[in-house]
Amino acid sequence: MADGLDLTSLIRDIPDFPKPGVGFKDITPLLGDAAGFAHVVDRLTEHFTGRRVDKVVGIEARGFVIAAPIAHRLGAGLVPIRKPGKLPWTTQVQEYDLEYGTDRLEVHTDAVAAGERVAVIDDVLATGGTAAAAAALIEAIGGEVVGLGFVIELAFLGGAARLEGRDHVSLLTYE
Amino acid sequence: MADGLDLTSLIRDIPDFPKPGVGFKDITPLLGDAAGFAHVVDRLTEHFTGRRVDKVVGIEARGFVIAAPIAHRLGAGLVPIRKPGKLPWTTQVQEYDLEYGTDRLEVHTDAVAAGERVAVIDDVLATGGTAAAAAALIEAIGGEVVGLGFVIELAFLGGAARLEGRDHVSLLTYE
Repeated sequence: MADGLDLTSLIRDIPDFPKPGVGFKDITPLLGDAAGFAHVVDRLTEHFTGRRVDKVVGIEARGFVIAAPIAHRLGAGLVPIRKPGKLPWTTQVQEYDLEYGTDRLEVHTDAVAAGERVAVIDDVLATGGTAAAAAALIEAIGGEVVGLGFVIELAFLGGAARLEGRDHVSLLTYE
Repeated sequence: MADGLDLTSLIRDIPDFPKPGVGFKDITPLLGDAAGFAHVVDRLTEHFTGRRVDKVVGIEARGFVIAAPIAHRLGAGLVPIRKPGKLPWTTQVQEYDLEYGTDRLEVHTDAVAAGERVAVIDDVLATGGTAAAAAALIEAIGGEVVGLGFVIELAFLGGAARLEGRDHVSLLTYE
């Protein structure tokens, strides 16, 4: 990397988490490293700078820690997209498919005003189901999705296909 | 407020959430308001500026969105304290009392190095059980708690007593 920081050395591989056979990318060493955390926030902020972002969406829960400093740096508001039952006011709900079964995400219906420009941030782009559902939620309440940003992209899971036609950026890609 | 921003107008009161008889302070309108969000981050960052903070702890999940931009502004690392089973690596566990029963928080045992100086951030100081448990967790893994910061303090619940002898700051206090 141009500034000599090796982000991959700050990602911890956890075998069999959260279930057997799944390999988990633990970003807590990266978050806890002041230079690494600054690097991630700086690079993703740069991607959205000058693109008139009104709101930055963070997807619960790891997405919050990346989205919030980007929102702050862009001078934007921060919008949480959460798992069912966590948001206390009126919500828009989006169901999406998992490998087996479905899951749901929610956003407050007043989280974005009509026509506001929104960046969607999460820690990892995996199958793309969560990210696509988040983008659909924002559009359902009247926002315009400017783009999506991730720290890690697990390219072998094909998530980019679910975001076709959308701008997206990932800082680290595992092929 | 000196800068003319009325934070209380950006806090939404939700009756009977998450259960009947409990009044919930919804900070999502504040987070979504660019000026309000910047104000909160600026004021809490100021409280810890010049105090050599190495790590900023965010308590899951709303604490993450406040802690992360403060960590970024202070040039510190970000440490998540999470509910049981969410952190993938070796954790230190702290049990704490609720009104009825107990709950637990976890932190990775390598989240803080011995002697590192830590600020602990959450959205709301209520009974103080969560905040006191978070501070105890950080000390159990070798960190020094510089202070605690909150957006809202529900003073009538007496949480400050649980933090006696510790520095803490709250931006909005409900008596």
